[in-house]
Amino acid sequence: MARIVQKFGGTSVGDIDRIKNVALRVKAEVDQGNEVAVVVSAMSGVTNQLVEYCSQVAPMHDAREYDMIVSTGEQVTSGLLSLALQELGVQARSWAGWQIPMITDNAHGKARILEIKGEELVRRMKQGQVAIVAGFQGIGPDNRVTTLGRGGSDTTAVALAAAINADRCDIYTDVEGIYTTDPRIVAVAKKLNKITYEEMLEMASLGAKVLQTRSVEMAMKHRVRVQVLSSFSDAPGTLVCDEDEIVEKELVSGIAYSRDEAKVTILGVEDQPGIAAGIFGPLADANINVDMIVQNASEDGTTDITFTTSRAELERALKVIKDNMQIPYRSINSDKSVVKISVVGVGMRSHAGVAQTMFTALADKKINIHIISTSEIKVSVLISEDYTELALRALHTAYGLDAA
Amino acid sequence: MARIVQKFGGTSVGDIDRIKNVALRVKAEVDQGNEVAVVVSAMSGVTNQLVEYCSQVAPMHDAREYDMIVSTGEQVTSGLLSLALQELGVQARSWAGWQIPMITDNAHGKARILEIKGEELVRRMKQGQVAIVAGFQGIGPDNRVTTLGRGGSDTTAVALAAAINADRCDIYTDVEGIYTTDPRIVAVAKKLNKITYEEMLEMASLGAKVLQTRSVEMAMKHRVRVQVLSSFSDAPGTLVCDEDEIVEKELVSGIAYSRDEAKVTILGVEDQPGIAAGIFGPLADANINVDMIVQNASEDGTTDITFTTSRAELERALKVIKDNMQIPYRSINSDKSVVKISVVGVGMRSHAGVAQTMFTALADKKINIHIISTSEIKVSVLISEDYTELALRALHTAYGLDAA
Repeated sequence: MARIVQKFGGTSVGDIDRIKNVALRVKAEVDQGNEVAVVVSAMSGVTNQLVEYCSQVAPMHDAREYDMIVSTGEQVTSGLLSLALQELGVQARSWAGWQIPMITDNAHGKARILEIKGEELVRRMKQGQVAIVAGFQGIGPDNRVTTLGRGGSDTTAVALAAAINADRCDIYTDVEGIYTTDPRIVAVAKKLNKITYEEMLEMASLGAKVLQTRSVEMAMKHRVRVQVLSSFSDAPGTLVCDEDEIVEKELVSGIAYSRDEAKVTILGVEDQPGIAAGIFGPLADANINVDMIVQNASEDGTTDITFTTSRAELERALKVIKDNMQIPYRSINSDKSVVKISVVGVGMRSHAGVAQTMFTALADKKINIHIISTSEIKVSVLISEDYTELALRALHTAYGLDAA
Repeated sequence: MARIVQKFGGTSVGDIDRIKNVALRVKAEVDQGNEVAVVVSAMSGVTNQLVEYCSQVAPMHDAREYDMIVSTGEQVTSGLLSLALQELGVQARSWAGWQIPMITDNAHGKARILEIKGEELVRRMKQGQVAIVAGFQGIGPDNRVTTLGRGGSDTTAVALAAAINADRCDIYTDVEGIYTTDPRIVAVAKKLNKITYEEMLEMASLGAKVLQTRSVEMAMKHRVRVQVLSSFSDAPGTLVCDEDEIVEKELVSGIAYSRDEAKVTILGVEDQPGIAAGIFGPLADANINVDMIVQNASEDGTTDITFTTSRAELERALKVIKDNMQIPYRSINSDKSVVKISVVGVGMRSHAGVAQTMFTALADKKINIHIISTSEIKVSVLISEDYTELALRALHTAYGLDAA
């Protein structure tokens, strides 16, 4: 007997037939003698409709009311899935965030979970009642509904699994697991059986959209074993777990890419102390995320500074720099047609030459590297977007990841 | 300065533009210096969609989950109206039933309000914040969402008005008020300026669908002054109030009709003590509502018993009688093509001849009366459905109600 949390996303509960199908999957766990809690998203399309209503009424809407409105989508699904389970003869009860309660801070629209009082849920689960929890929501200190931000249902599931000491958290989605890279681009991509928290965190923050970054952070912090699998097939998924659970470690586990990148270069900046602070301070004040940064001093006493940000924030970033730049500079240029490609693997901690393999593979294909950045378990490069597919395939082969 | 509760039904908040229009009406009350609480229904069509989902998942659905699901419609509207008011510069905050809290009993799907803890609402209203309350819902003793049954938002509004000592409860709907009879049938029907609680209660329970019966009972009990008016025009509505507030009392205030009637006659029942109990006991046990009852003893020692019930319950009623009838009888027949027409007026308490006017007017038009029943302020007759319009027009004229 195990205690399992299952999470089903919007596509998995997209219509009544799919909700009935999910009920069968839940019942299968119950029939094996497991204690089960389920976290559900809104039926696909519902949240978008509610957000659209908010925008139509008030373009700059009050976050408290936004949360009141959009949280209803998950509430409906939790009720419907409970009904579907009862119809199969399985005891089930829905739980809105405020009923558990799932206590969050006051940051409406992007709240963080502070505490889950799961005692009553566990008491009922022990009696065989499945708890169907509305994802993505909680209750704030002022007795108002909060939401965790888009994709927050993953976080709900992992936090719940941690709170009730679940043996596993199964995240059902529309893909069969975590792949070595995007299988839509690299046909020989392999599904991973296991991946470490650290690798998954890098993959998620680098654009692999299967799991929300925050949910992976939370899983890592609380050591919750997370399985990613498809609600449309019976294939085994990918287990996100502690490094100790993985016997055969690959040098590189996966190759991620992110197209949401824009590059800004400030040319001919007078080389003096404090230039980095003078540029990046105002950007931070304006809440603009900066990712990679490179500074090259040249011999004429000036320097070029290059950094990347998301495409959506590029125009705002350029304005902030032009408005705040105190230090003389020659010109600014920017480029939206870039992509960031990253190889990720805990194995590279103990192995040299991982970056070199990457540079060689790209050079062989005549792909020019704009920026390089590295961390303990990751090497990222910024290249021209035109070479995305070519680079992914070359690197996948170079690291020996191609499926047999 | 007054304290006002406004209630807007599903048609009044049917889309985003209408919600914005409602916000203007609320603002108008606020601009006059009034303290305002607003009760809203779900956007029209939303509740039906949610009920349909429930039926698709589980034909015999658990009432707790049904309530969890269908209560979301009002929650969405309350949030959207709050946003719309904020957009107009009016302070506003939405309230789900559990947040107030609006405490009900445990009868999911048809709960009764036990207590409204309105202190926090009033505190905020005094500071100029409009309270936007999700209608039709509350919270039960087990911390679960309850609903009051279809049309329950009227009851929410009146109960809230009673709880916070409002000076008036304005029910906005898609008609301009209470009419002497259905203006779609009798073109010369007049809108009433005022009507007593007692008359409104009879009208509502007789099929005038403008106000829900339970909301009128509650208004009468707590002496809440209720105004019925249109959200689509600026015409004054009808005030439902105490008899003392009405100076010029009409003999008859209105003529109601109900097509949801079916007649059952049991012929040739052996005339012995206990026959009524033997027939109506089993019907009551089966929760079948019986309205009019007539018993005629004949000279051969048998009797005929006739009663009416709603059309939807006719088949079930016939089955209950056939299964339970211990006393010998000759035959049963039934008729669905009947209508009940009622004249209502507190004036008839002190005036004789009101029923006689009715019988004469119908006889003049050769309309046969099947059953008569009377109460202190009402005379009802059951006639063939074919004569509905003819009877309504004849009676409207006979009682001098035609508009000049």
